Formats: sequence, C-alpha cells, structure tokens
Amino acid sequence: MSPLNQLDHPELLQKKGQNTHWYIEWMNSNAAHLHGLQKVVIAQKTRYQYVEIYQTVTFGKFLVLDGDPQSSEHDEDIYHEVLVHPALVSHPNPKTALILGGGEGATLREVLRHPSIEQAVMVDIDEEVVDLCKKELSSYSKGAFEDSRTKLIIQDANEFLRKTPDQFDTAISDLTLPYPNTPSEGLVTEEFFRAIKNRMKPDGVFAMQASRTERGMNQLFKHNIQTLKKIWKFVCPCRAFIPSFYSEWGFIVASDQHDPLKVSRETIDQRLGSFSSQLRYYDGLLHPALFVLPKELR
Amino acid sequence: MSPLNQLDHPELLQKKGQNTHWYIEWMNSNAAHLHGLQKVVIAQKTRYQYVEIYQTVTFGKFLVLDGDPQSSEHDEDIYHEVLVHPALVSHPNPKTALILGGGEGATLREVLRHPSIEQAVMVDIDEEVVDLCKKELSSYSKGAFEDSRTKLIIQDANEFLRKTPDQFDTAISDLTLPYPNTPSEGLVTEEFFRAIKNRMKPDGVFAMQASRTERGMNQLFKHNIQTLKKIWKFVCPCRAFIPSFYSEWGFIVASDQHDPLKVSRETIDQRLGSFSSQLRYYDGLLHPALFVLPKELR
Amino acid sequence: MSPLNQLDHPELLQKKGQNTHWYIEWMNSNAAHLHGLQKVVIAQKTRYQYVEIYQTVTFGKFLVLDGDPQSSEHDEDIYHEVLVHPALVSHPNPKTALILGGGEGATLREVLRHPSIEQAVMVDIDEEVVDLCKKELSSYSKGAFEDSRTKLIIQDANEFLRKTPDQFDTAISDLTLPYPNTPSEGLVTEEFFRAIKNRMKPDGVFAMQASRTERGMNQLFKHNIQTLKKIWKFVCPCRAFIPSFYSEWGFIVASDQHDPLKVSRETIDQRLGSFSSQLRYYDGLLHPALFVLPKELR
Amino acid sequence: MSPLNQLDHPELLQKKGQNTHWYIEWMNSNAAHLHGLQKVVIAQKTRYQYVEIYQTVTFGKFLVLDGDPQSSEHDEDIYHEVLVHPALVSHPNPKTALILGGGEGATLREVLRHPSIEQAVMVDIDEEVVDLCKKELSSYSKGAFEDSRTKLIIQDANEFLRKTPDQFDTAISDLTLPYPNTPSEGLVTEEFFRAIKNRMKPDGVFAMQASRTERGMNQLFKHNIQTLKKIWKFVCPCRAFIPSFYSEWGFIVASDQHDPLKVSRETIDQRLGSFSSQLRYYDGLLHPALFVLPKELR
Repeated sequence: MSPLNQLDHPELLQKKGQNTHWYIEWMNSNAAHLHGLQKVVIAQKTRYQYVEIYQTVTFGKFLVLDGDPQSSEHDEDIYHEVLVHPALVSHPNPKTALILGGGEGATLREVLRHPSIEQAVMVDIDEEVVDLCKKELSSYSKGAFEDSRTKLIIQDANEFLRKTPDQFDTAISDLTLPYPNTPSEGLVTEEFFRAIKNRMKPDGVFAMQASRTERGMNQLFKHNIQTLKKIWKFVCPCRAFIPSFYSEWGFIVASDQHDPLKVSRETIDQRLGSFSSQLRYYDGLLHPALFVLPKELR
Repeated sequence: MSPLNQLDHPELLQKKGQNTHWYIEWMNSNAAHLHGLQKVVIAQKTRYQYVEIYQTVTFGKFLVLDGDPQSSEHDEDIYHEVLVHPALVSHPNPKTALILGGGEGATLREVLRHPSIEQAVMVDIDEEVVDLCKKELSSYSKGAFEDSRTKLIIQDANEFLRKTPDQFDTAISDLTLPYPNTPSEGLVTEEFFRAIKNRMKPDGVFAMQASRTERGMNQLFKHNIQTLKKIWKFVCPCRAFIPSFYSEWGFIVASDQHDPLKVSRETIDQRLGSFSSQLRYYDGLLHPALFVLPKELR
Repeated sequence: MSPLNQLDHPELLQKKGQNTHWYIEWMNSNAAHLHGLQKVVIAQKTRYQYVEIYQTVTFGKFLVLDGDPQSSEHDEDIYHEVLVHPALVSHPNPKTALILGGGEGATLREVLRHPSIEQAVMVDIDEEVVDLCKKELSSYSKGAFEDSRTKLIIQDANEFLRKTPDQFDTAISDLTLPYPNTPSEGLVTEEFFRAIKNRMKPDGVFAMQASRTERGMNQLFKHNIQTLKKIWKFVCPCRAFIPSFYSEWGFIVASDQHDPLKVSRETIDQRLGSFSSQLRYYDGLLHPALFVLPKELR
Repeated sequence: MSPLNQLDHPELLQKKGQNTHWYIEWMNSNAAHLHGLQKVVIAQKTRYQYVEIYQTVTFGKFLVLDGDPQSSEHDEDIYHEVLVHPALVSHPNPKTALILGGGEGATLREVLRHPSIEQAVMVDIDEEVVDLCKKELSSYSKGAFEDSRTKLIIQDANEFLRKTPDQFDTAISDLTLPYPNTPSEGLVTEEFFRAIKNRMKPDGVFAMQASRTERGMNQLFKHNIQTLKKIWKFVCPCRAFIPSFYSEWGFIVASDQHDPLKVSRETIDQRLGSFSSQLRYYDGLLHPALFVLPKELR
C-alpha cells in the first residue's frame, strides 16, 4: 500500500480492469464494437489492403482487413465449417475443389478434411496476407498449405477463371466484402458468378460466404441469392451466428444437379466419416436446420 | 461557406457524421457495443432498478434495465415470437397463460394472439417499468394491456406463485438476467422452476428466455437446461439471433405431456391460424429448425 | 448474494463502475473526449442550433451547442472571469457594456459585478438558448438577467451593430466558434470587428474569447490577434486552462487608449473592490501573468 | 466504382475517416481520452512496468507506462523545458545535476544544454525503459545519453540516495506518479524529499514534476507543495499546459539560498545564453508568469 492515502488523492485512483488498447469495429457512424486488445501481432499494408492481426482478449487472434473483421481464433471454425461442409457433403464424390480467397487457410483446411478430395486449388490475390496467415495463424491452417493435395495460386480470381483450363467438382468463394477500392470490389456480380460456374463440372457444387442476414443489413445477402438464382437450379441459403462478428452470417450453396436439401442425415454423417469428430459445430443433424431461414428472409 | 478558409483552420473542421451521444453496452471490461443515440426518452430509478428507454439510431427505441439491453423496437418481435409461440403451439388448446416478468407487454401481446387464450395473467414486480412501457413503448404492447383477457398483477413472482390457487395451461418466464442485486436474482433455481410447475396443469407447457447461447458465454443457458431436466420430461432448448443484442439468444420449452419436437408443421400453421400473417419471423417451417442446436451445444 | 455462483457464470459478471451513458466530444476523427453522463437535462433543436445540457459526472452541468462544449458548472467561472475582468479593469470607469453572445448569462454576471456598470446590453441571436440557460443554468446567471441594469436583446449581432445608435465603454464578444452553418459563421472577420469598434467610445476596451491556444490548433487564435491588430492600438492576447475543455483557451483584450499591460496590481485590486472575494481564479496578481504567452506563441 | 450501387447496400457503406485502432486513456470510470493510433511501436512488460510507445495521429510517438501517458513527441519539449530550466537558471553556476527518473532522456537533454554542467547523473530503475527510449525515442534524447558528461545509473532512487557520497548543485525529480504497485509508489514522501536534499549542496536547487493542477484533481500537487515547504526555504510551484495530457501540469522549484522568483529576466536570458534559440516554450519573459498561480491555488 502506498504511504499516501489513496482516498485523499482521487487523481491516483487505480483504473483497474480498464483496458487502454482497443480495436473499434465501426459498423457505421452510429454503431460500433469495442474489442479490448492484448497486443498487435501484425499491422501492415500489403499491395492490396491493410492487414492487421490483433490479439484480442475475448476472441483470441483476430484477422482484420481494411478495418473489417475476417475471422477470429475463437470461432473461425463455425464460419469455415458452415462455408465448406454443406456444399461438400452435397456432392457424392468431390475430387477437386477450387477455393477463391480464404487467405487464412481455414477454408482449405476444411476442404482437405474430405478424404475424396484429390486436389484443392486455392486462388488468392494477396500473397502477403497468405504468408502472414501461414505464419501467425498457423492454428487456422493446421498444415493445410503443406498438404500435397494443395495447389496455392497467387492471382486475381477473375484472371484465374479466365485462364484456367480446369473444371472442378466444387468451388468455394471466401472473398472479402465487395467494398469499393478493395480487392473484392466487383466479385459479387452475375458475370463473376457465371465465370466460376464455367470452370465447374456439370454436377459441381458451389458455396460462398454471403454477408449479413439481419434485418436492414441483408441487402447483399439477398442480392447474392437473387443473382445465383439466375445461374443455378438449386440455390440454398443458410446461416450461422458468428460470435466475433456479433452477427448471423449468410452462406449459399448452389448446384444444378445436387440439391443440398435432399441429402439425408445418414448420408451426411457417412460422407463426413471419421473426421466428423473434429468438427465442433456442424453435422448431419444440424445440416437441414441451417437452411431454414426465418419467414421474413425467404 | 464561411469567410474563413476552413482548410487553414483545422480546429474548425466539421465533425460530420460523428454522433456525440452514446449508450455503451459493456459486456465486460474488454468488450462493449456502442449505440449512437438520438435522445433519451426515459431515464429514471424505480424502486427496483434503473430504467432507460433510449431512442437509438440503429434499433429505434431501446429498453435498458440496470445498463442491460432488454429489447428494441427494431427486433423485439423476433425475441417475443420465439419466446411465446413454440410453447403455445405445442399445447393443443391453451386457455390460460401465466407470464412472469415481460414488463414491455410484448410477451403478453404474442400470447393474446392465440384465440384459444381466455385469460393471460401477467405478474411483474415493477409497476413503474410496466407503466413506462405502456406509455412509451405502446408499439410493443399494441393494446394488450387493455385486452379484457389480461390480468396484470404487480407482485414478486415468488410471492405470486406461493399464494395463487390458479393452475395454468402455459407459463412463460420473461425475467431479466439474475445479476446479483437485481429483481431477478435467484429466479433461475430449481426451487423457483418447481414453484412455477406447481402452478401449472399436468399437461402444461412452460417456456423461458434462457440467456446467451454462444461459446464461452452460455453457462447460464446450460444451467437452465440442466435444471429444467430435473423437473420436466421434455426439455427443448431453441435459439434465435437477436440483432440488437448482437447475440444469439436461447429459449427453452418444457412439458411433461406435449413434446414441442413432435408438433407437425401443419399442426403449427393451423394453430397459428389467421394471425400467422402478423408474424415476421416464426412459422411452422421454422419451428423444428429453431430446436436444432449446434453439435457443441447439445 | 445470488444462489448462482457468479464465478461459474461469467456472462453475469457485474460491470461495476462502468458508466453506460456518454457524451463523446470529437476533436476530429482521431481524437475525442469521453464524458460519463448522469442524465440529459436538455436536448432540443432551436431555430439556430442543437442545444444540449448534460449532467456529467466530472464537470456537473455541461452546455453543448451543435456537439461542441460551451461551458461547465465545474469551471465556467474560470472562463468568464478571464473573458471579462482583464478588459473591465483596464478601463478606468466603464459605465456601459455590450455583450455579444454569452447566452448562459455568466458573462453578464461577471460584467455586472463591476459597480461602475450602469447598463449592460446583451445581444444573443438565440432566444431559446437564453431561456433554457436562464432556467436550467440559473447557477451561472445568478440573477443577472433580472438585474435592472441588464438589457437583453434577441437579435443577430451584425444587425444590432448596424442599427444601434449607442456607443459603449466596453464590449465583450462571447460568440460560439465560427463553424460553417452555425450562427457564428463569419463573426471573426475584420469587417465584423470594425463594426463592433464603431459602436464603442474612443477610449473603449474590447475583449473576446479567441479559441484554442495550443500548438497546431491555434490558427484561429492567431487569426484573431492579427485581425484585431489592424484595428486597435493595443491588442493583448491572454490565456487560461479550462479543465472541462481539456484545453488552454485564448482571449484577447484590445483598446486604443487603455493598455491592459500597464494597469498596476493595486489599480486592479482597487477596481475589483469588494467583489474580489467572489472571484476564485482572477485577481491583480494573476492579471499580468495571463498576458505572457509562451515564446512560440508571441 | 463498384458495380453494386452502394446506396442500395448500406452494409457496405465505407466507414471513411473512422480510425479503428485506439489508445484510451481512462482518467477514471467517467472520463477518458481517445487517441487514434497509427501503430504500436513498442508494447512490452519490463521487470517494473508495462511500457508502450504508440504512434498516435495527433501527438506523434507517445510513451505510456502502465496505461498512463508520460510524454509525446508533439509537446514533450514544453514539459521538459518547464521542468528543468526554471530550476537551473535559478542557480548561478550549476556544475552537477542529479536526475531521478526521466527515462526518456529528455530531462537529461535539457540539463545538458546548460554549458556550466560538468556532470549529469541520471538514476532510473528501469533499464529496459531507458533502452527502449534510447532506441525508439531518439528524437527526445538527441544524443544526450552519449554526452561525455552523462552518467547513467540503473538503480532504485532510494537506494542510490542512501549509498551515493556525492552532493549535487541541482536535482530534478522526473518520476512517474506514485500509483500503488508502481516503481514510484512512495516517492512523494517527506522522507524521500529529505533524502534528496541530503545529497545536495547547501545552495542546491531542486525541481520536480508535481502532477495535475486543476480544480478537484490537484491534491497531489498541493501535497507536494506542503511537503516541500517543511524542508526548503523557497518553494515555488509553477505550471504549464501540456496538450497531449489535456491538462495543466504542475512543477515545483525549491531551494534554501536561491529564490527562483528573484532571478531577473536579463539574468535568465544570459544564463540560457546561446541555446535559448533551441527552446520553443521557455524564456526569461515567461519565467515569472509560470510561477503565478490562480488565486484558488495559492
């Protein structure tokens, strides 16, 4: 205890329990989330965007691109399980997978869990982000980049799609939100979605992250659904609450031949097989429930 | 335009788009949500708690008790539809309903939608909160307090349960979280849940709001499930994302005779009947999906 | 204590000592002050501006116009003493005073302390602000509006100056900062300052609040000094730290015949006379020190 | 421009001008300052304290110890000029100087400007802080650590004072605030101040930083003044506004033989000599004004 009586010296009152270092996620000028930080792991400008990896108190390591949350150690598994598995279990035998974006390597990780996968091609525009994630978020990728089935291509998604001769069983779009002046600007157009389909086999299954689902903030989610419906026969939106986003997030699975809503629980659990025990969020029981949207969203 | 060149006077730069008036919801000392305010509608101390009704930019009117969000104009319907209807449609013919808490009158509103209801008894400890909600949140209660079937009792829930001779077809607990030194402290114990059941008919259906479901923040949700399982045969947790809570919220339906998971979509839509068109979130299609918890939560 | 072990339920941890209601003063997009609120006393739009009176924890009642702090109960005396007395003690016998702005009535209060004052004319454009201050900030005006020497005129300052035939011994400008689209836009020009001088007697003494003095934020302070130097013989800037502004604030005294720096301590204390005991901040000893600017500001 | 019409997609609205990375200085649970960050230069725990060097937008590099601001690139010169020069110019011929604390090296820098100084002994407990400042805040120390007159001793101040046989012409205490559980706890007691005097020559001049001066927050300032008055004949408090502290800061000069208030402007400017041109804030004209406290503080 100090020789000074603290009660007599209010200017010295300890500010116990008050974090002084914060990441503020601004939703808009009237709403924000405050994340108390332990430290800044990475903060640097790449050729394409500003990348930060914060060590937050609540959500562990937190990847932020251009100020926007991408994923946190605390719950990235929820996001990536729901992005990947509903699509892959809808396909009877996916051998090849295309991943657009997904720099963290966690989408790749989930894809590679499926033993039928013989090749996973991941295309990301920003090599620096991928390298930073490999190094600083290795708990995400868990060795996926070193898997012999992985082919990592640093390229613009549009350019890749134009030039590749390959056709894939499944494709997963895990691109950042299409803010103006970001790498993903323009990557939610019908043209782009058609370019993806063009590089898929006739019975291919496509999945994408599709932005917020909540009332008043879901225009992009609806836009994505409507746009995909012009292109694919089965277009099935689903959703999951992501704690570190403080939001329910939308995803869409699309296919011409395989209806995700028709895959039985038994089929799913069989297709997940032995790696099912490694999943914390998703399984055959949850699968159909993910696809039931609230009345107002249908 | 000012005769002064603003560029030469940075201290005069307009602070455009920056709200200066905020409600900060502290989750803990390392996490908070910032809500930009338009005005403070109500801020006063009642006998039991501190009640604020904020006019927020994002979520409209926002009821806050002791600093904790209760419900917002923007999405209170989601909360109250999921709290009430899964229970009431599980009962073939609910004539009497007991509501504990629910000062806003929106739980009451949803209960009264069911034409089979002949009497709804609402018991709330805090008359001032009820009166403020009647007046300032009339868009919530929509006349429910004036419905001839409504009986409003200002009383401590425990005391009411001890003294009432009535037995109800359904009971809905919409109490605030059991923080120490709040009116609801102690209202999530086995003893209290038994006292409720004791005032219900043998085929009664009970529902309660059950706190957050998210990873690391769901101990109370799990506690409630475990405690109810000691008392009821069917204990069915469900959940819905509440945008203004920035969280997925848990609810539980319990009964000895009516299994909420066995009610068919057709039965539900028939029991909702004509008022179904007034619901934005809930219906017979969504009902079973609400009850499927993620793998880690089962 | 709750029957629940709080340690087992982190989601219920009390958020002790965390205020949830805040006024955020944005300096710019990279700097702000957070003021914990007890309540909002007034928040309304007048014809000219948005007026708020906050009850803050730290500074008591706090008048805010268009988001900008004007004065707080805690330290408005510092601001108003330094605005008024250095000018009035520089004049040997001020009988008439013109006050431009100063809606709180505290500038008026300080002027009226001088027994030589026979008439104080206060001109403010915004009657609603004046009325709100009379009612809600009566501890500021302390009856000054009811003083028989007071003449309150609700009018635009420019218009008043154009039309009045009067000439004053002293004039005090206590106008808000000249942000674009505010009532005071344009009230720091040479033309306006000349219009004031035109309504003063040849030996008149003028004083004004002159904005921030600090490095990098003092362009307006310097602008005011330079502009007044074109008009008056003696132009004497001074400054005082205002705690609730978190800033040192500049003021300027100007005259053609009375040099504020030449008034002796004895003369000042004699001119303050018996009301000196009511001043907490200013006296004849402090007077010359107020006018000594740091080297970089001269 | 994005192919999506941004107006149709409010969830994509750019959050322009909103910094997401902040240092929040909590004054107490009801008052705080927000500092927008560019990056974190240093954040690490030393043996004694948590040291952070933030690159802030407004104040440049900002040294923070245990969450408390120490000094910023923007205005550390004001603080260090007023800490050092009023004391050193009060001594006719200071040859030896003792500096307690002052890890940044800026107090040392100001001391060494005086050509009469033959030896400056700086005693700081925290070698890691000193090393970090040498490296990251070299614009503060400007080579002072390499000056042949400098003797840096890593030691607890109390222990140094007990053991050293030396006696100094001047001593400057630049220690952190005496919060409980910090290195400076206990370093504002009469015993400690006597220990300093004991290692000074009979005509020595002592100076210290003495905490906030503002109304309601100046108990420590007053405590320091009262305590020094028991020990020294001349005890002269002074003050300066430090923009990055958002506060007026107090300092005290004390001596038995040299009265700081009796040194003439000419003497001061002569003692500052040629290095006067390197000072931005302090000079012989400002000197006496610094020592005139407001009426309420005397």
